[in-house]
Amino acid sequence: MTVITLGLVGAGKIVRDQHLPALAESRDFRLLATADPRARLASMPGYASLTEMLEAHPELEAVAICTPTHLRYSQARIALERGRSVLLEKPPGATLSEVEELVELAERHGGTLFAAWHSRFAPAVAEARDWLRERRIQRVEIDWREDVRVWHPGQAWIWEPAGMGVFDPGINALSIATAILPRAFFLRDARLWIPSNCQAPIAAALTFSDAEGTPIVADFDFRQPSPPIWSIHVETEAGRLSLLRGGCRLELDGRCLLDAEEREYPNLYARFAELIRQRRSDVDLAPLRHVADACLSAWREPTEPFIE
Amino acid sequence: MTVITLGLVGAGKIVRDQHLPALAESRDFRLLATADPRARLASMPGYASLTEMLEAHPELEAVAICTPTHLRYSQARIALERGRSVLLEKPPGATLSEVEELVELAERHGGTLFAAWHSRFAPAVAEARDWLRERRIQRVEIDWREDVRVWHPGQAWIWEPAGMGVFDPGINALSIATAILPRAFFLRDARLWIPSNCQAPIAAALTFSDAEGTPIVADFDFRQPSPPIWSIHVETEAGRLSLLRGGCRLELDGRCLLDAEEREYPNLYARFAELIRQRRSDVDLAPLRHVADACLSAWREPTEPFIE
Repeated sequence: MTVITLGLVGAGKIVRDQHLPALAESRDFRLLATADPRARLASMPGYASLTEMLEAHPELEAVAICTPTHLRYSQARIALERGRSVLLEKPPGATLSEVEELVELAERHGGTLFAAWHSRFAPAVAEARDWLRERRIQRVEIDWREDVRVWHPGQAWIWEPAGMGVFDPGINALSIATAILPRAFFLRDARLWIPSNCQAPIAAALTFSDAEGTPIVADFDFRQPSPPIWSIHVETEAGRLSLLRGGCRLELDGRCLLDAEEREYPNLYARFAELIRQRRSDVDLAPLRHVADACLSAWREPTEPFIE
Repeated sequence: MTVITLGLVGAGKIVRDQHLPALAESRDFRLLATADPRARLASMPGYASLTEMLEAHPELEAVAICTPTHLRYSQARIALERGRSVLLEKPPGATLSEVEELVELAERHGGTLFAAWHSRFAPAVAEARDWLRERRIQRVEIDWREDVRVWHPGQAWIWEPAGMGVFDPGINALSIATAILPRAFFLRDARLWIPSNCQAPIAAALTFSDAEGTPIVADFDFRQPSPPIWSIHVETEAGRLSLLRGGCRLELDGRCLLDAEEREYPNLYARFAELIRQRRSDVDLAPLRHVADACLSAWREPTEPFIE
């Protein structure tokens, strides 16, 4: 298999924390350059913009877009129109409509488009999905609570509307739930708590249902003292399946079925390589659609101002 | 052509104002019964629920669902699972996800599902779409402003989240814009004004763009003194096309091209009959997706309380 040449768009925290280590060990990709007006890596050419990077490196086959959400559509468009394959960090866009447009664009130009929900690549997610496929589900509880001051220090953008507040981690839970539950589900009731000096919620209580009426309740909260709780519990006739630590550990009735090291980004890049080689796209809008549905139909309550 | 037997689910204001007159003159449909726990029509059998109506009238081939938005999914599901065709009043559901589920259900059971955006059936909409198909568009201005006290008297539900506030009329404008403009567009910026005693916006300022960068600005306002303004102006290289009075009048540079009586619901039922006979569905989520996108990414500003 030939190695795929890659450029990174954006060279911020998520790139340094996750993309670079994953790419350093990848046998599928060779990272050639970055495009970021404010940051560059010491080890390779850096460009101020995606267009400059693509002009300087016509050999680039793929780009991973890791910029703030509102910039992703226009950058993905540039790359797709020039025949490149594109990985979009989560969430894949600031609006559902712009991502729908990118899907069409990818089809027209033949490039791979990959909406990369990294939490779906946690080690126990595939096993949870396979185990649940055969089981009768009675109730699902999603608890996704963390201390915003610990996990998002100084990230003022998270309190703007596009920052999505507690939905920034919460959408990871939704990306797992939509992957492991055998049936589609949809929102029945939503309540959001918005700090009086912010635009985005600090907490959300969501109640979903699937076509069989199974209750699926989600509790997202940014005010959780450490340690964080990133759990999904599924009550079934065959026992209570618990996906813990963001998908690293799987328990059945408290007994450990799997406990593994977090390797989301290496797995995510392996999937991107597979999609490129098969000339396919993978864009599941369900997690972002659930967040949009919550914003569309939630009751909003003001709560005390957030001061970091 | 055989006549299609129809039942109405919900017998409230929109049924009396629009559905009954349209059905009275329809040669495609014969209305047999209604299902509404609180209202019935003097001239025909009325049932307290959809299930009772379908049991009493196994000959019913289609239903039109005109209940409050949050009830529509479960009612549509009952009808589709029993092999009936379904018309959904606008908006087609309380969430995007539930409508996606209904689309799959209709495919599985072979019934027609029709998300009925009534404003698309205004007399000048098709002509505006055809005229714009060949033109180079420079700018679009959507003005949709009316006095909520005149057009929605006593409708307290409109101020709840699912009532959508000014998006209740605004989504009609979006249903027209998505039908007449030749390219998809998507939100770039949104600002909503929420009365301090309400959950839903009283006014919205939206800026969209299409893939060519064409600016599309929308101004929705519930505080407009009568008469209402329901206009879409499209600047093109061949002149300024104006769709006025909610789609009843078409002007080019101020010169009248078409001025016709409003016949949205008769045309809408003709389309429903056509879809049933062709065994096809027509569910365009774009207008609701734009509203969800606005709720997802808008800046919200409190404004003075609304007292009716």
